[in-house]
Amino acid sequence: MKPYVLGIDIGGTNTVFGIVDARGVVIASNSIKTQKYHKFEDYLNELYTEAMKIIEANDAVDKIYGIGIGAPNANYYTGMIDSAANLPWETPLPLAELVSKKFGIPVAITNDANAAAIGEMTYGAARGLKDFIMITLGTGVGSGIVINGQLVYGHDGYAGELGHLIVKRNNGRLCGCGRTGCLETYCSATGVARTAREFLETRTEPSLLRNLPIEDITSKDVYDAAINGDKIAKEIFEYTGKILGESMADMMVFSSPEAFILFGGLAKSGELLLKPMREAMEKNMLPIFKGKAKVLLSELKEADAAVLGASALGWEAKPMPAAAPATAAATAAV
Amino acid sequence: MKPYVLGIDIGGTNTVFGIVDARGVVIASNSIKTQKYHKFEDYLNELYTEAMKIIEANDAVDKIYGIGIGAPNANYYTGMIDSAANLPWETPLPLAELVSKKFGIPVAITNDANAAAIGEMTYGAARGLKDFIMITLGTGVGSGIVINGQLVYGHDGYAGELGHLIVKRNNGRLCGCGRTGCLETYCSATGVARTAREFLETRTEPSLLRNLPIEDITSKDVYDAAINGDKIAKEIFEYTGKILGESMADMMVFSSPEAFILFGGLAKSGELLLKPMREAMEKNMLPIFKGKAKVLLSELKEADAAVLGASALGWEAKPMPAAAPATAAATAAV
Repeated sequence: MKPYVLGIDIGGTNTVFGIVDARGVVIASNSIKTQKYHKFEDYLNELYTEAMKIIEANDAVDKIYGIGIGAPNANYYTGMIDSAANLPWETPLPLAELVSKKFGIPVAITNDANAAAIGEMTYGAARGLKDFIMITLGTGVGSGIVINGQLVYGHDGYAGELGHLIVKRNNGRLCGCGRTGCLETYCSATGVARTAREFLETRTEPSLLRNLPIEDITSKDVYDAAINGDKIAKEIFEYTGKILGESMADMMVFSSPEAFILFGGLAKSGELLLKPMREAMEKNMLPIFKGKAKVLLSELKEADAAVLGASALGWEAKPMPAAAPATAAATAAV
Repeated sequence: MKPYVLGIDIGGTNTVFGIVDARGVVIASNSIKTQKYHKFEDYLNELYTEAMKIIEANDAVDKIYGIGIGAPNANYYTGMIDSAANLPWETPLPLAELVSKKFGIPVAITNDANAAAIGEMTYGAARGLKDFIMITLGTGVGSGIVINGQLVYGHDGYAGELGHLIVKRNNGRLCGCGRTGCLETYCSATGVARTAREFLETRTEPSLLRNLPIEDITSKDVYDAAINGDKIAKEIFEYTGKILGESMADMMVFSSPEAFILFGGLAKSGELLLKPMREAMEKNMLPIFKGKAKVLLSELKEADAAVLGASALGWEAKPMPAAAPATAAATAAV
């Protein structure tokens, strides 16, 4: 069996890719700018050129078993990106097919949060866990749900959008999805910044945050202020943690996971976020589940996480039936 | 292979059991009163005696492959009932082990809503569906979640308690679980009756329901009044359907089921409930899921549903390792 997979994480800004072995060691990695290429064809040519450089430099030609890709809104079943606000290309885009044809290697794709969950299960904090929910607290809130050792894709490949659970049914914040009250409008990095603006505008207490232009406040600013003892900043984290914990208690009645695994910038806020989150989760938990769910932080190194997650999916990649002849030809070319 | 399974549905009032063949035909069935036996031993003796009567009468001795049991709070993994407010016996109760020893036949158990989902998947509206959510609208609201063709048990066997999703975070109704705002306090038969009392007390319009003692109003009374054109009664169903639909839109972001299957007394209210439910579900749906989820009604005959659901689990029953010698002896005795 071929010893490596290629993991590709397509983000709105950067595309990171790396060669990974079966134990999760990143042999080599590099990145290109996603936004630089307005035509997918140009992007793919550049990605191929740069990836082949590290593949050749590491004597890995013909040793790549599969390619795994994590990308916004990528669909595991269809291999398509149907729409994605953060990517510069026309959609629908048959991502898996095009990449597979280009590299001559089977490709499997899924969305970024699912890729993170697979990475965590294969190499990280979720090793050995059969039932867990990965929650990514970044610009938005993403999730990857694993039940009985399998990632939940749903009937259409789009399951696990827990950032869009409605946590405020009335007068909730407007979400990018067009609805109001979604979890991610409160518990993402941007949600924390929105809470900061709301608190600063509706209250009068002094705060270190008042030294900053209100529209520019980031979750990092709130974190820094809270660490420095700022009362309003600490309350912003309490507010955020409470909503997240309440929502996690709801997630529990669905699939009764053994653990929640938190990932992403906001998850690094430590006890500022985790303490109120744990308290709210346990307080709102259905009695039968009280004290049962662990809350773990991702164990994947930040720099490697996205590539590792995507690469783990590479082991699942199967040749596309329609693309088989092209794939064979491309393999020969490589 | 032995051609039959024995399905046992243990309800708070009655225990219904039946011999079922592989195509889902109920060969024979009968019932005993659950509440009559305060000691489980006495109950089990009576259940055994009565079940053996129909087994012998149908020449099915030594032809029962397994026994499937649906019972409140029954745990698939442990075979135990840890606690159950509606059953007269001391808990924790090692139900699977005791029944298996008594009959000399492997036993698998799960809770009643899960049993209904398995029955629907094996014999009913969910045949051929790999991803669906069964919602039972009875005295309470139960659920059985099927993902990728497998029932979701969660890490501890208690997954799928969607009746305890919080639909009203503040000032919600007190639930039997000790918390407030659970879905089942609004969208069960008792929830409908509570809504009726609330509406009648806070409003002044005339209503057919005002002819009834307010504490005795049932969901059936509300249904009858609505069918007769009563405005308040119709609004009660609109209120109930709206909350259910909003909640189903939330369930969708979790597992993206192909269909919801509704079961139980309240599901038979037809368009009175289904119309506002569908409207609220679609209105609150994350755009990517709009128009995708079917809403189906259970296809199992009311009288057979519980037994069929439980019996389908019988095909999954495996001999209990610890009980093997006793089982063998008991089989010989049979």
